[in-house]
Amino acid sequence: MREEAMTSEPAERGASAQRDGAARAAAVLEARSVAIVGASADPGKIAGRPLAYMLSRGFAGKLFPVNPTRDQVQGLKSYPSLSAIGEPVDLAIVGTPAAMVEEVVREGAAAGVKAFVVFSSGFSESGEEGAALQRRLGELARSQGVTILGPNCLGVANSATGLIASFTTALEETPIERGGFAFVSQSGALGAYWMDICLRSGLGFSKWITTGNECDMDAAAAIAYLADDADTRVIGLYVEDIRDSTAFRRALLRAAAAGKPVIAIKAGRSRAGAAAAASHTGALAGDDVLYDACLRQHGALRVDSLGQMMDVARLFLFDSVPRGKRLAVMSVSGGAGVLIADEAERWGLELPALAPQTADALAPVLPSFVKAANPLDLTGNVVQDTPSISRALEAVASDPGNDAIVLFVGLMHSIATAFTDAIAHARQRTRRPIIVIWIGVKETSAAILEQASIPVFRDIPPAVAALGAAVRLNALREAALAMPAPPEGRSPAAPAGKTAFMAEWAGKALLRDMGIEGIPASVLVGEDPPGSLPRPLRYPVVAKLQASDVLHKSDIGGVVLGIADDDSLRAALRRLGQIARDRRIEDWSILIEAMQPFDHELLLGLRRDPKFGPTLTLGRGGVEVELDPDVASRLLPLDSASIQEMIEGLRSARLLRGFRGRAAVDVPALARQVARLCEAFLARPDLAEIEINPLAVGGGQAWVLDAVVGRSE
Amino acid sequence: MREEAMTSEPAERGASAQRDGAARAAAVLEARSVAIVGASADPGKIAGRPLAYMLSRGFAGKLFPVNPTRDQVQGLKSYPSLSAIGEPVDLAIVGTPAAMVEEVVREGAAAGVKAFVVFSSGFSESGEEGAALQRRLGELARSQGVTILGPNCLGVANSATGLIASFTTALEETPIERGGFAFVSQSGALGAYWMDICLRSGLGFSKWITTGNECDMDAAAAIAYLADDADTRVIGLYVEDIRDSTAFRRALLRAAAAGKPVIAIKAGRSRAGAAAAASHTGALAGDDVLYDACLRQHGALRVDSLGQMMDVARLFLFDSVPRGKRLAVMSVSGGAGVLIADEAERWGLELPALAPQTADALAPVLPSFVKAANPLDLTGNVVQDTPSISRALEAVASDPGNDAIVLFVGLMHSIATAFTDAIAHARQRTRRPIIVIWIGVKETSAAILEQASIPVFRDIPPAVAALGAAVRLNALREAALAMPAPPEGRSPAAPAGKTAFMAEWAGKALLRDMGIEGIPASVLVGEDPPGSLPRPLRYPVVAKLQASDVLHKSDIGGVVLGIADDDSLRAALRRLGQIARDRRIEDWSILIEAMQPFDHELLLGLRRDPKFGPTLTLGRGGVEVELDPDVASRLLPLDSASIQEMIEGLRSARLLRGFRGRAAVDVPALARQVARLCEAFLARPDLAEIEINPLAVGGGQAWVLDAVVGRSE
Repeated sequence: MREEAMTSEPAERGASAQRDGAARAAAVLEARSVAIVGASADPGKIAGRPLAYMLSRGFAGKLFPVNPTRDQVQGLKSYPSLSAIGEPVDLAIVGTPAAMVEEVVREGAAAGVKAFVVFSSGFSESGEEGAALQRRLGELARSQGVTILGPNCLGVANSATGLIASFTTALEETPIERGGFAFVSQSGALGAYWMDICLRSGLGFSKWITTGNECDMDAAAAIAYLADDADTRVIGLYVEDIRDSTAFRRALLRAAAAGKPVIAIKAGRSRAGAAAAASHTGALAGDDVLYDACLRQHGALRVDSLGQMMDVARLFLFDSVPRGKRLAVMSVSGGAGVLIADEAERWGLELPALAPQTADALAPVLPSFVKAANPLDLTGNVVQDTPSISRALEAVASDPGNDAIVLFVGLMHSIATAFTDAIAHARQRTRRPIIVIWIGVKETSAAILEQASIPVFRDIPPAVAALGAAVRLNALREAALAMPAPPEGRSPAAPAGKTAFMAEWAGKALLRDMGIEGIPASVLVGEDPPGSLPRPLRYPVVAKLQASDVLHKSDIGGVVLGIADDDSLRAALRRLGQIARDRRIEDWSILIEAMQPFDHELLLGLRRDPKFGPTLTLGRGGVEVELDPDVASRLLPLDSASIQEMIEGLRSARLLRGFRGRAAVDVPALARQVARLCEAFLARPDLAEIEINPLAVGGGQAWVLDAVVGRSE
Repeated sequence: MREEAMTSEPAERGASAQRDGAARAAAVLEARSVAIVGASADPGKIAGRPLAYMLSRGFAGKLFPVNPTRDQVQGLKSYPSLSAIGEPVDLAIVGTPAAMVEEVVREGAAAGVKAFVVFSSGFSESGEEGAALQRRLGELARSQGVTILGPNCLGVANSATGLIASFTTALEETPIERGGFAFVSQSGALGAYWMDICLRSGLGFSKWITTGNECDMDAAAAIAYLADDADTRVIGLYVEDIRDSTAFRRALLRAAAAGKPVIAIKAGRSRAGAAAAASHTGALAGDDVLYDACLRQHGALRVDSLGQMMDVARLFLFDSVPRGKRLAVMSVSGGAGVLIADEAERWGLELPALAPQTADALAPVLPSFVKAANPLDLTGNVVQDTPSISRALEAVASDPGNDAIVLFVGLMHSIATAFTDAIAHARQRTRRPIIVIWIGVKETSAAILEQASIPVFRDIPPAVAALGAAVRLNALREAALAMPAPPEGRSPAAPAGKTAFMAEWAGKALLRDMGIEGIPASVLVGEDPPGSLPRPLRYPVVAKLQASDVLHKSDIGGVVLGIADDDSLRAALRRLGQIARDRRIEDWSILIEAMQPFDHELLLGLRRDPKFGPTLTLGRGGVEVELDPDVASRLLPLDSASIQEMIEGLRSARLLRGFRGRAAVDVPALARQVARLCEAFLARPDLAEIEINPLAVGGGQAWVLDAVVGRSE
C-alpha cells in the first residue's frame, strides 16, 4: 500500500524521533480535549461518528465540534475554526479533503493543538501527487512539533478515557469495554475486525491504534507507547511495511522488557516461500524472511490470522501460559486424549509421564480398567462419579512434572456444573494454568470458566496451537532480552551506490586484513606461469582462475581440485591460462590454495539490507541449499550465544553434532568465529556484502573456501 | 482401546464376510421393527432413551419394549422376552450386563431377530475375561447368521427412518435433521461430538454409526454400506484401529467409486513422528505411517480434528469444491487478500493472474488507484458503490483462469444485503464455487448464504485449509480409482514365525534367481583365500565380509571399497579374513563385487506388515534418511504409475530430475524396475522382508548395492 510513504522520513527524522515516539503517541491517545474538524450533525456519517461515539460512550474530556456552517453540532456548541475555540486543544480530528489537510494542521498548530488524527485519503496510496502532499504533511509535523497520526487511517480509541477518534463501524453496535489487550494496525480494516472480535467476545481492549500512511507517528511509536501503558498487558500488531527498522526494533524490545507479549501478523509470507526457492543467499534472505527474523529476534510472535492472535492473547490475558513445555492432559474420551498428544508433539510440547505418587493418588479415582497415564483417560465414568473430576484434577495438579493441565470435555451438559465447579476450584488451589477444550460447550459453562480466568477452546488443534505459540513467545521474549540491542540512532540508510564484487583472491586478502580467521594459505601467480613454482607449497592444493569479471569460476572449468604434485600443478596452471586466453579474459591470475579437509559445508552471507541494515544468513551448504533450504537469517548485531542458537535451530543441526560417523563440530567455537566475522562486517560500512560458500568446517576450524566480497561504490 | 478384539476375527470370517459387509450393516441401519431389551420407563435413563428418542422423533416402524417387570413402557405394550413378541423383529437393542448378552442374542436369533446393537460394556475393553466373552459373541453372530454391532458401542441413527438405536446425550435437545453427511466412529464419544456439531450447525446427517468393540460388524462394513446409501454424499470416519485391512481398503475404494469423499480422523500421528525418527526402514514404516498410506491410497483424506472435518465436508455438501487449484481472490481489504494468498501457497493452491479481458472489465468497476489483480482489492469503496460488488464478481466469474472464487468481507453490516444478494446471484449464474470468508459476519447473513449453498468461514486459515484439503481429496480419489485394487479375500495373516536374515551374498543370489535386475556382478571366495584370484574381475571392486550373523558389516570394518588392482585385492582379502578370525566368526566368506558408479542413493524396503500385509517403503538414502527422513510408504499392490508418483512426491525429487549437474534419473524406468521388484515380492510369501540400502541409481539403471533379505521361518 504505502511504499511511497516510507522512503524519505527516516533520514529526516533522525535520533530525536526515536526518543519521543512514545510521547508523540501519548499526545494522541491521552488527549483530554478533542476538536472534530468538519463535524457532522448526522451521527451516522463518517464526519459525525467520532463525536457521536464519544458522546454516547462518555468521553472523559472536552469536545469541540468545528463546523463554520452551524451553531450546534449533535447538541454541542460548534466553532467556525480551530483557532476560534479559544482554549488549548490536545487533539484535532481531521477528515477534510486531502488538499486542505495541510492548512488545517498549520492553523491548528498555531492555535496550540498538539496532535492530529487525519482520516483523509488521497495521499501516498493514490499516486505521486498524494505522496508529495504526504511528505509535506510529515515535514509540517516535525517543523511544528506536533504529532500527526495518518493520513488515511481509521484513528484510535482509548477505553480508559472513552476517546474514540475513529469512524470505524466496528463500534456501531457494541459498547466499549476495558481490557488488557491493545492493537496497533497499519490497516484500518484489520483494525476494525480486531475491535469487533474483542468487543463481541467480551475481551475488551485497552488502546486501539490504526496508523494508516504513517507520515509522522508510526507503528513503532505506538508500540513504544503501549510498552509503557499501565492498562495494556498484551500487544497485538498488524504490519505491512515498517518505516524505521531501528525504532521498530527498539519498540519491540521495550515491550519485551516491560513483560508484554507482542503477537504480530505480517502479510506476505508467500513471497518468502518464493524467495527461499531462489538460488543465492541474497534471495534467500528476502524481505519477509527479515521481517520474520526481526519479529522473533525482538521477542514478538508471528501468527497468521486474527483468530490465532486472539487464541494466544487469551492465554496471556487469563494468566494461563504454562511456564514450560510440559502438559498434563486429562480427557473424558481416550481418543481425544491421543489427538491432543498428536497436536502437542507438532507444537513441541511434551506430555511427561505422571509421577508415581500421582498414579497412586489416581488409582482409587479411576475405573478399574483405566491406567493412570498422560494423557489420562477419565472415561465416561465421570457422569456416574462426578466427585472423581475434582479428585483427579487435584492429583494431577499436585504432580511436580507438568506446567499446565489441559482438560478435555465433550458435551456432558447434565454434569456441566460439576465440571465448572471442579475446574474453577482447582484453578484457585493450584498456581498452574488449566486450559479447557470443551467440544459442544454451552455458552453458560464457557462464561463461568472464563470468569474464573480459565480459557475455553471449542476444538483441539487451535487450543494446542495457542499453547505451543504462547510458550514459544515467552521463550522468544526471554532470548530477546539477553541479546545485544540494536544501535541507537536512525535506521540504516540503503547502501549508496552499486556494489562492486571483488575477485576471490582480493576478497580473501581483504578478509585476512580484517583479521578474519580460516583463510587458507595461498599464493597468487600472474599471467605468465613462473618457471619455478612458488614455495613453500603443501600439497594437495587447488588452483583457481581469478578475474574480477568471472564470479562463477567452476562454470567455465576455472577450478582444478586435488592437485597432488608439481607436475600436476604445472599442467593445471597451463590449462587455466589457456581457458583465460580462449575466453579473452583480461587481467587474470591464478590462486593456488592449500586444500583443507573438512566434515561439513555451511554457507554464510553478510549483507546490508536497505530496510533492516546488516544481516547474517547462515545455513547448510552444498546441494541441499537449493533443494530444501535449511538456512536462518538474523539482523545484526548478534552475540555468539544467539549465533549458536541459530546454528542449533537448523534442521541439520544433528549433522553438526557428529551424526553417523561424521566428526562433531565445536558449535560454540564456530559461533564465536562467526560472531567475530559479524563484528568485522559491522565495522566496515563500505562493504555491502560478504558471501562465504562454502564455509567448510573441520578439525575445529571453519575454513573460508570460497568468498565473494562486494564493496559499495 | 480394543487391541484384544482385533486379533482373531479376520481369519475366522474370511471372504464371505467381505461380500456381505454392506448387507450386514443394512440389517442394522434399515431396521423397520425394533425391540428394546430392558427398556426403561424413564426416558432419561440409558435404558429408556432409545425408545424415548424414537417415539419423539417419529420412528417410521414398529417398537417393542421388552421388560418382564412391566405391562407397558413409555406408553407401549411391553413384552416379557424377545421370543414373546410373536412376530419377526429386524433389530434388538441390548444393554444388559455383559454376562447376559450372549443369552439374549441366542434367544433373539432363535426368535428371528436379524441384528443386534449391543451397548453393554465389560468386554475386551475390560480385560481378558471380557475379551473371551466378546470372542464368543462374534462367533455366535457368525454361526447364527445375525449381525451384531458393538459391544461397548453407542449405536446408530438413521435420519431417514427416525431409527435411533442409541442412548447418546447428543440427541437430548436437538431434533434430528436429514442431510448428506454420514459418520462412522469407533469411539462413541467422538461420534456424539460429531452428531452434536452436525445438528447444531444445521448440516443434519444421513446415517450415524458407532461401532465400539467390533465383535462382528466393523467400520469397513459401515463404510461399504454408506458407499451404496442413496442418502449419503459425504462420509466422515474416526478410526483407532481396524480389524481387517483388506475389507477396509475395499470399502474405501467402494466409496471412492461411488463418488463419495471420505474424510478420516486417525489418532496416533505422534507415534508416527517417533517412528520416523527411528533408524531403519522397518521403524520408518510404522503403524501410523501405514494407516496414513492406506487412507490416501484408497482416496480418503486424513484430517486432525472434527472441526477440520466439518469445514471440508461443508465444501462437498455445498457443491463448492473447486475442480482445480486455481483460486480468484477478491477482498474488501488489501491486507486480507495477501493473507489469503499466503495461506493458499501453503496448501498448494494457486492465484493465477487475471485474464486481460477480466482486467478490462474490472477497470471501470474499481477505484482509479486500484489495479486489477489476483488477489483483487475491492477496497472500502464498495460501501459507497454497492453495485460494484456484483459487477466485480461477474467479471471474475467469467475469467477462464480460475476454478473458484474466494470472497473476503469484514463487518460491513450496513451493506450486508448488497453482499448476500450479489453473491447468491453470482453463484446461480456461474457454475463455479464461491467461498465466502466473512470476519464478524452476522448469523442472518451467513444463513442466507448457506441457504444458497455458499459456505461461509469466519477466519482465513480454516477456509483456505478446507479448500486445499478438498482439492487434494478429489485428486486422491481419482488416483485411488486408477490403482490396482487390493486382492480379494481375507486380510493378510501375520508372518507365521520369526524372520531369518540371509547373508548379503545369499540374499542377492536369491534376488537374482527371482529375476531382480541390478545385482552387481560378483564372486564369492571362501575362508581360505585362493592362491589365484578369481577371474574375470573388472576393477574397481569392493570386498565385503559375509556371515549370516553379521548384518552391519561396515561397523566392524568388514567392507573394503575402491579396490583397484590385484595387490590391493589380496591385501583386502587378508585383512577381512583376519577380522573374521579375530572376532571368531564362524562360517564366513568374502563377496567381491564390481563397483558401480552412481548418481543417487535411494533406499527401498519391502515388508509384510501383520495388519496391512505387503508394503513398500521408498525414499532418499544416505545420511539424510535419519537426519531428515524423506521417505514414503505404500501398501501393495502398486503399479508403476503409482510408484512413479510416489517417487515424484519425495521432497528430494528435484535431485532426481537432474539437479545442479547431477545426472537426471529416468524416473519412469526406475518406477518400472521397482514395480517388478514389488511383484516378485508379492509372489514370494515366504519372504518377510527385502531391504535394499542403497539402491544406487546411475547410468539408466538402479543397482542393488546392499541388500538384506529376511525369510519367514
